[in-house]
Amino acid sequence: MEGVVALNIAIIGYGVVGGGVYALLRDGALGIYVRRVMDLLPIAGLEDGLFTDNIADIISDPAIDCVVEAVGGLHPALSHVTAALRAGKHVVTSNKELISHALAPLKEGAAMHRAQLRFSASVGGGVPWLHNLLRQKRGDTLLSVHGIVNGTTNYILDAMGNGMDLSAALKDAQRMGYSEADASADLDGLDTKRKCAISAALAFDAIVEADSVPTLGISAVRKIDIDTFAQHGLTCKLMMYAERGDASLCAYVEPSLLARDTLAAHTPAHYNCITLCGVQSGALSFFGQGAGRHPTAENIVQDLLDIATHATYKDPFLKPVPVDNDMERHPYYIRTSRKELLSGIDGEDWNGALLTKPMAVTALHALAKAIREKDPDAFFAGVPGYDELCHERSGKV
Amino acid sequence: MEGVVALNIAIIGYGVVGGGVYALLRDGALGIYVRRVMDLLPIAGLEDGLFTDNIADIISDPAIDCVVEAVGGLHPALSHVTAALRAGKHVVTSNKELISHALAPLKEGAAMHRAQLRFSASVGGGVPWLHNLLRQKRGDTLLSVHGIVNGTTNYILDAMGNGMDLSAALKDAQRMGYSEADASADLDGLDTKRKCAISAALAFDAIVEADSVPTLGISAVRKIDIDTFAQHGLTCKLMMYAERGDASLCAYVEPSLLARDTLAAHTPAHYNCITLCGVQSGALSFFGQGAGRHPTAENIVQDLLDIATHATYKDPFLKPVPVDNDMERHPYYIRTSRKELLSGIDGEDWNGALLTKPMAVTALHALAKAIREKDPDAFFAGVPGYDELCHERSGKV
Repeated sequence: MEGVVALNIAIIGYGVVGGGVYALLRDGALGIYVRRVMDLLPIAGLEDGLFTDNIADIISDPAIDCVVEAVGGLHPALSHVTAALRAGKHVVTSNKELISHALAPLKEGAAMHRAQLRFSASVGGGVPWLHNLLRQKRGDTLLSVHGIVNGTTNYILDAMGNGMDLSAALKDAQRMGYSEADASADLDGLDTKRKCAISAALAFDAIVEADSVPTLGISAVRKIDIDTFAQHGLTCKLMMYAERGDASLCAYVEPSLLARDTLAAHTPAHYNCITLCGVQSGALSFFGQGAGRHPTAENIVQDLLDIATHATYKDPFLKPVPVDNDMERHPYYIRTSRKELLSGIDGEDWNGALLTKPMAVTALHALAKAIREKDPDAFFAGVPGYDELCHERSGKV
Repeated sequence: MEGVVALNIAIIGYGVVGGGVYALLRDGALGIYVRRVMDLLPIAGLEDGLFTDNIADIISDPAIDCVVEAVGGLHPALSHVTAALRAGKHVVTSNKELISHALAPLKEGAAMHRAQLRFSASVGGGVPWLHNLLRQKRGDTLLSVHGIVNGTTNYILDAMGNGMDLSAALKDAQRMGYSEADASADLDGLDTKRKCAISAALAFDAIVEADSVPTLGISAVRKIDIDTFAQHGLTCKLMMYAERGDASLCAYVEPSLLARDTLAAHTPAHYNCITLCGVQSGALSFFGQGAGRHPTAENIVQDLLDIATHATYKDPFLKPVPVDNDMERHPYYIRTSRKELLSGIDGEDWNGALLTKPMAVTALHALAKAIREKDPDAFFAGVPGYDELCHERSGKV
């Protein structure tokens, strides 16, 4: 590698991911040396002198070049990361809540102090998605990004497709360690929404508030829905979608009904499959484990190696861009016991549910909100209007 | 980008790919400037002063930092590239014949003259496969690589799956510009074998002679084969496969019969889908257009951007490693009119063809050679013994 430098790091948070990063680096073979590990309580088996429970031991130590933030959640991660960047230390994190909430100010802080802020593992777990997104856009214009970015919900939908029910599938996902501590962040689409906001920010140089991304989750999906989809040759996946517009961008999260001949429909278990459409490249898809200790820790180590070798890409300047989903229209599956709420909406009967004619995403998400206030068990899924291979949008060969 | 430098380049060969690279760079917006374009005959519409038909105008020009070789074939590409590296110029090429034939000496030449040799587009067309393979192995150990790396044969097999016959599908592929000038390099698996050798070389730091990779192609595939596979729920794809061994490596190319629930089975048209299995990452797959002017030119431009920003990865030191496929065993489909040649081989009747019990790859490829001498229309396909998700071989989550 040209310009290899030894990198001295501290790891904040010795949980699944932080512990995984330590395990990958402890022999020093990669030229990256762990000098401090911070957690609330002493860690058994750690080398002498590494442990601290005091952030000041890290921030004020000039020998530490880089901090791996593996605490998760917004606080105290935000203050730790802010302090590290102010001290001129690089930061690597997989924290999607932190990045989706504070990307723009953190990037400014990093630039001011000539530090790098990398967060590849915040979207896609072990998939090198954000790295490739940034690399591709150096020489191409990205038109859209879409895909499966939540391992827990994919695991659950895959298991339900094999006959399991929601609660059993969720228990399995938790037992395998894929699910977040609070499963509702996964099931309600909150995690996917954050990853959509981060992906759209980097793809389109935009400040995207996660809360401005309309989101439908899968907590109300039932066996009857999955069976109905199967009868129509469709597979249900929780997807994010974002597309460049003129003065706005399109961005939403919803369960999508995919034809069986698509790549995304064949994403099993806790895997993720994420696609960018470039004017020159057309569709490029990236597939791998979207959750789990080893892949996520590995993605963090790859960020560290990029910093150590100066092989990082230009950070985009972000400007606020509003989300507007009025232009995107496609059919929706709506299952509700309160049929009177669907009066005036045209469509086809699917085992007692309604498959609508194409509707604007904005209108459907507003309708879904109204229906769910009266029927929390209602379930909604879109039939994607986009072309998985980007044929309509990118340059023809 | 840190350390951006303007890069002055020459393009040798103004065909589909070379012309595509010129079109992407002509406005100079990426900080990469085309200073010379070489071809046999003058090029209409080129800016004044750019054209030359004399390689010396490029090699002896100290203002040119980097050469894009887009001639294809072994000669004169090899002498042009060798001369450029000797003059200390970086080289970017998509020429798989050149790279599979001469990777080790070219890399040595590049290192001696402190020049970079990049060839991402030589495998996978527009898929950032070799880039990600090199990036991943910095911090992970790669156990195997496999996938679809030839756009023409994938286009043909996909079209045959939709009812077209071989010759009509081939004509379509040629009309779309996916097929090489000589289609037999695609159909007989020669192109795939070269890409297998290049991928294995980078994955396992090995000098792999393309001719040491046993290869079966698809020139004898017929509608009856495709129909038989469909009856058994299988899809036929031409695949490369390579796996790390102790003192040897496993490497072969053959038509593979894939279950419909695999990712690779859903690779349409001229797309490629290529997978690495890492100890930490597990399966990582990369999907995109494997042929065509825009994606291939874009991949070359990405290599140029890596050189311009010093964002390139350590080149492996290559040592000779023998290919040994004795240990890999799986069932094979064999269709031949000379049934007497199959005597003593156990198996199941598949519409008059034989599905064998698991056989060693070495043994089957030797048998296939013997059968094809007497029956050139015989067709062979393997039922992969490897796990698409690498579950058996990589670290569990």
